[in-house]
Amino acid sequence: MTTRIDALDTPFAAIDLAIVESNLKRAQDYFAGHGLGLRPHIKTHKIPELALRQVELGACGITCQKIGEAEVMADAGIADILLTFNIVGTLKLRRLVALARRTTLAVVADSSAVAAGLSAAMSEAGLTLKVLVECDTGAGRCGVQTPEQAGLLAREIDRLPGLAFGGLMTYPPRGQSGVTRRWLAEAIAAIRALQLEVPVVSVGGTPDMYRAHEIDVSTEHRPGTYIYSDRYMAAHGVGTLADCALRIVATVVSRPTADRAIIDAGSKSFSSDPMGLEGHGAILELPDASLAQLSEEHGHIDLSRCRAKPAVGDRLTIIPNHACAVSNLHDRIHGLQGDRLERIFEVRARGRVQ
Amino acid sequence: MTTRIDALDTPFAAIDLAIVESNLKRAQDYFAGHGLGLRPHIKTHKIPELALRQVELGACGITCQKIGEAEVMADAGIADILLTFNIVGTLKLRRLVALARRTTLAVVADSSAVAAGLSAAMSEAGLTLKVLVECDTGAGRCGVQTPEQAGLLAREIDRLPGLAFGGLMTYPPRGQSGVTRRWLAEAIAAIRALQLEVPVVSVGGTPDMYRAHEIDVSTEHRPGTYIYSDRYMAAHGVGTLADCALRIVATVVSRPTADRAIIDAGSKSFSSDPMGLEGHGAILELPDASLAQLSEEHGHIDLSRCRAKPAVGDRLTIIPNHACAVSNLHDRIHGLQGDRLERIFEVRARGRVQ
Repeated sequence: MTTRIDALDTPFAAIDLAIVESNLKRAQDYFAGHGLGLRPHIKTHKIPELALRQVELGACGITCQKIGEAEVMADAGIADILLTFNIVGTLKLRRLVALARRTTLAVVADSSAVAAGLSAAMSEAGLTLKVLVECDTGAGRCGVQTPEQAGLLAREIDRLPGLAFGGLMTYPPRGQSGVTRRWLAEAIAAIRALQLEVPVVSVGGTPDMYRAHEIDVSTEHRPGTYIYSDRYMAAHGVGTLADCALRIVATVVSRPTADRAIIDAGSKSFSSDPMGLEGHGAILELPDASLAQLSEEHGHIDLSRCRAKPAVGDRLTIIPNHACAVSNLHDRIHGLQGDRLERIFEVRARGRVQ
Repeated sequence: MTTRIDALDTPFAAIDLAIVESNLKRAQDYFAGHGLGLRPHIKTHKIPELALRQVELGACGITCQKIGEAEVMADAGIADILLTFNIVGTLKLRRLVALARRTTLAVVADSSAVAAGLSAAMSEAGLTLKVLVECDTGAGRCGVQTPEQAGLLAREIDRLPGLAFGGLMTYPPRGQSGVTRRWLAEAIAAIRALQLEVPVVSVGGTPDMYRAHEIDVSTEHRPGTYIYSDRYMAAHGVGTLADCALRIVATVVSRPTADRAIIDAGSKSFSSDPMGLEGHGAILELPDASLAQLSEEHGHIDLSRCRAKPAVGDRLTIIPNHACAVSNLHDRIHGLQGDRLERIFEVRARGRVQ
């Protein structure tokens, strides 16, 4: 006999497994249809079993942001990992070498300093590591600043012992496929002019994933959030709230005034990433209510626009603004089939800051 | 031979143990001098060893926000716990009964519904639980709304089987000791008029803790953040950055432009609680720099106001805006004596959302 979710104590984080499966298949179909590789970013779920399911459905590998995440995924049997972060420092390079010995690994670099560190570690270990040049195509984070710089760093990587130039990687600005395409095309041209091939062009992000084919110079895409989706994605037209698998189930613990309800979940359950939205989540039972404010353990709900108002003890189901941040707060995620608990996932790559 | 912190991989969260000790002693001296009980809120550290040290220095007990936190602290031998949260629902009440059997426990209630649930569980178990009435003295979270309501709920608790009226509890609005004092005094008068005593009047918060004596009707105070302090407290005149024990040590991994540095710590290390401050932390080595933006794994530093600019590989020491949120992200905190690692603390009550 399975457990009904009413029998679970609150607050808890849960995913609707049917929605997860549907989100995964829809994405895989899209990328397969366009001949693009899908390399999911596991930061959204941090759960090995879900990464394995993504690969089983056709993903060409996975993306991790930290070595600690990649180690957890390699332990679980994931065989192809792109680490989209500059790896710097003796301790991390040592772990990178150990990881490169046991899985198909590629990393990124956006400077000579990073490439030199990678080269020293890999050549000393007698390994050759694939290194992609990270390109800042407008998002303003890491990355070389011009297509010409991408070319020069590609040549440098190609010449360094222990490294092989693996292609280009960018986390692009949202809603600017044209800009990203042009930038990457110029970088590819600059690199080819240096007599080098560009085997991989890796682009990322869920918001624009269903326009990935517009960047026709790319070879693969690295969306993360699409597996769970969240209120931010629904607000930006990537599906609707019905496509959001992740939810926090909470209990009303106080009704101090006619217009205020307090639930037993706050920023420790939802994170405080506002994501530019009004309110911190969508309350499915009370669409007119606003999760207006979060303390660490209290969620403050504004009921002023609601007709029906909840009582102490009522349970609410809330779609969070930012799925990835929620996964990093919870040790376990409850996998649901309808209103039944199917299984509990350990969020094994949670909190791997290194 | 102890480890130098240079030998630790980044990012990591650390506390300066000498600052912790000094913060604890200063607070204990103040409250002892004013004849007030100090009942630290452990949400800031979530570490049993530090709670035990607080008690050893003279704290009258501790404060927890969730049963899960209280269970961890009771396991460690903490003998007197105030749980400042409405406990609602069969599953939690069952855990509350188990906890009440093994430690000196008090909880709060702000409605008849909450009090009735507590009464049913406790009387069935043959126990008597101390219950404080939570008062909303202006912070706008949980709590009865008027001193008169406090009186009525106190009488109700007094009459319910399995419960004993334990006094008043408030999380007060910041910088309004006069308002809080007046509210509580009126509530005490209302309760005394009903022939009841008010054994405990418990007030909280670090920002106003050194003015706690101005609320001369209170008997104890529940500060949390004072043990570590943070950039928010320093910005609001509670000590300075030199009193902040908690820091994140991070490495510069990218210098994409003249004015931008990217470190290997983002919202997964700092949380995204802005706390109304500009920037997400104070960078000790670069006082003119701003930790302007956080991605999950990247911290974006604006160097435009800096003369000396860091290179890839440089380490930075950053005081976070909000200590409590940081503790909830890290499984371990490194205890430092100067630049040496003295011990590693497991953050055992981390992530206890229930």
